Amino acid sequence: MREVVIGLLGAGNVGGGVVRILQENQADIERRLGASVRVKKLLVRSVDGDRDDSVPRHLLTTDPREILEDPEIRIVVELMGGIEPALTMVLDALGRSKHVVTANKALMATHGEQLFSEAQRRGVSINFEAAVAGGIPILRALREGLASDRIERITGIVNGTCNYILDAMSRTGAAYEDALKAAQDAGFAEADPALDVGGGDAAQKLSLLALLSFGQRVDPEAIPTEGITRVRAFDIAAADGLGYVIKSLAEARQTPEGPALRVHPVLVPKEHILATVRGSYNAVLVESRAMGRSLYHGRGAGPMPTGMAVVSDIIELCRHMFAFDAGRPPPEAFATVETATPISLDEVAHENYLCVHVTNVPGILGRVASCLGRHGVSVKRLEQELGGVGDPVDMVVVTERVPESNVRSAVAEIDGFDEVLAPSHRFRIQGPDGAE
Amino acid sequence: MREVVIGLLGAGNVGGGVVRILQENQADIERRLGASVRVKKLLVRSVDGDRDDSVPRHLLTTDPREILEDPEIRIVVELMGGIEPALTMVLDALGRSKHVVTANKALMATHGEQLFSEAQRRGVSINFEAAVAGGIPILRALREGLASDRIERITGIVNGTCNYILDAMSRTGAAYEDALKAAQDAGFAEADPALDVGGGDAAQKLSLLALLSFGQRVDPEAIPTEGITRVRAFDIAAADGLGYVIKSLAEARQTPEGPALRVHPVLVPKEHILATVRGSYNAVLVESRAMGRSLYHGRGAGPMPTGMAVVSDIIELCRHMFAFDAGRPPPEAFATVETATPISLDEVAHENYLCVHVTNVPGILGRVASCLGRHGVSVKRLEQELGGVGDPVDMVVVTERVPESNVRSAVAEIDGFDEVLAPSHRFRIQGPDGAE
Repeated sequence: MREVVIGLLGAGNVGGGVVRILQENQADIERRLGASVRVKKLLVRSVDGDRDDSVPRHLLTTDPREILEDPEIRIVVELMGGIEPALTMVLDALGRSKHVVTANKALMATHGEQLFSEAQRRGVSINFEAAVAGGIPILRALREGLASDRIERITGIVNGTCNYILDAMSRTGAAYEDALKAAQDAGFAEADPALDVGGGDAAQKLSLLALLSFGQRVDPEAIPTEGITRVRAFDIAAADGLGYVIKSLAEARQTPEGPALRVHPVLVPKEHILATVRGSYNAVLVESRAMGRSLYHGRGAGPMPTGMAVVSDIIELCRHMFAFDAGRPPPEAFATVETATPISLDEVAHENYLCVHVTNVPGILGRVASCLGRHGVSVKRLEQELGGVGDPVDMVVVTERVPESNVRSAVAEIDGFDEVLAPSHRFRIQGPDGAE
Repeated sequence: MREVVIGLLGAGNVGGGVVRILQENQADIERRLGASVRVKKLLVRSVDGDRDDSVPRHLLTTDPREILEDPEIRIVVELMGGIEPALTMVLDALGRSKHVVTANKALMATHGEQLFSEAQRRGVSINFEAAVAGGIPILRALREGLASDRIERITGIVNGTCNYILDAMSRTGAAYEDALKAAQDAGFAEADPALDVGGGDAAQKLSLLALLSFGQRVDPEAIPTEGITRVRAFDIAAADGLGYVIKSLAEARQTPEGPALRVHPVLVPKEHILATVRGSYNAVLVESRAMGRSLYHGRGAGPMPTGMAVVSDIIELCRHMFAFDAGRPPPEAFATVETATPISLDEVAHENYLCVHVTNVPGILGRVASCLGRHGVSVKRLEQELGGVGDPVDMVVVTERVPESNVRSAVAEIDGFDEVLAPSHRFRIQGPDGAE
């Protein structure tokens, strides 16, 4: 039987998953591929570290050249994460005409252009399905399944940590800090959770989703991004009373002016299909012209789902290697790709949830309402917590659909009131399924 | 720009969708592909028929040779449906080394083996994503996205007509006949609905899902199949009271004895992810070893979703044509495929819903319960409608998990009672999400 030899840069959790899947599903993979896949070397920082039992100790090395310079190794699998030294090593592998599979969203979202063109020049591929939504084959769906369609909007729950925390807050009424702690204890949040809970991870994934959907490269740093750290138990309970759950959504939409992208916590109607996404699950809702709505739902992280996506990419590369001309690059999602700047969201209109924390004095409700009116923010619903004069109380406002910039300026003025005790909380409200 | 010339066998609803998508999304497709796709000829039964405005009259022909024998046409798109003359024409196209795209599930489920081997011999491809679940890229997900995983179970809502009718019955309390009539009026059911409501369409699709999941060919005729025609408003209401909705599910599972397949109406817990699939939507839940549960949800029929899947298949073929050696076949899902016979379901155990329609006489409830007990069918819950002596009443039984054959023999005996007025209704009950 034909054999394909691969090397792994990185042998942590995902690396362990990759090795385990290659072992456990060996017979299935050979039947699908008509060939076997052999891991020859794994690059690690130290050969003494704790790692998955499936990783054979005698294949570990601390010298990247043992992988990059080995002519027998046809596919290099990069699982180190971060920009450097991953970027240098991936460029080196491509430069030696090795195919690359990576799960590194940061690398692809920031250096994709450079890596694609180097791969093209060398007639090899770089596959990165695992970089977005773990094992859910969403990049493949966009690149192939929906290749003939015009993608109009993508709405994703693409960070399992955020969804796990918000879901736990919804179910238990816990405060954000306690839910984060529980997520860390359960292994669903990192010790340093900033990239997840701050929205940066989702912005990198959204950049890749937009690339595959629109053929446009958008710098993840240019995407308006808001984390979940400001979401309080009070907001979750108030949203629940109004018929919503709070989800962290990554959204990309095509507009005549350019792509509109954003990552932020949103009040989603309970009957919306994305409201049903539980725990650390991921889901991506695609709206396209011919197909309408389609949803892709599954586990977005973890060594096995992510490792599975990596090994499926390896299998695809092997199939291509067996069939393609050596000198011709395999199919890409787009023949041409442009770099785009996301549009300003100032004029984007939607309903909003506001929570204003004030000292309860006579007339304060009227002042807040008048201020909203002056800024062109129509109010659909306004409720103030009961409380004695001088007590701190929360005022919850649901606005009509109004442009982002109006709400922002109204809130800025309200937050300047002497009676306002803390910056107001504002979240977008999602329309019903299928609506804007 | 490079141009790929295609011919369509059939220019009905889906054909109109294909032409429309090629026109409307032309710029996007050219950007993705770096080439244009031109429809040169469309085979029709009569050039005078009513059809989509997008179909150019001057390209119509009633002579298949104008497509099959035209050397400029590289891809033949078969949209006639049924076995003949589709089979003869597709074999002819493959024999002339033309690639084929088809939406014909009957053809692929019954003659797939012959068509695959002819394609392989000629070094061309036959793509059929549109044959299952319309625009949902589920075959691609199984063939590529989950290629490295071991698929353990597939549970699909793959017939939009059945789901539309059952959903309407649930929402409105309508009788089956009225819901079918409404579905026909709304264009969601054919004038002759037998293939849909009888389960035959779903069995063909399930056969293809099993092929892509397990690498096993199963004759659709060998799949135990039960339609939705026996589902009454009473059953839907009783199921609702018990916390379930009735869905027509197509299921395939790997067992140590062989594949277990079946199409039938099932009571699905309301909180199960498949219970949320509305109207004519389709969804496929895949359970696999590394990935766990993943769900693919979208519109499974209609000219635009199905046409979109066809055009995406065309794009994939074009990418392969541009890159592959002429003499080498493009990647298949499995290097080897075996033919399998589905196992008997006699020993498969699950909970059951039974509805026994009886004349209300003293002791009848006890006789039914005793009979169930004699056949080893433990009862979890038994409710008898109120009624005077001699009135016809319904008795609803929920069983524990018991083997299929026990329930069948018990029901056969009960249906022989003098007091039983009609054959009893029996449906399987689905366990909660993630359970058996």
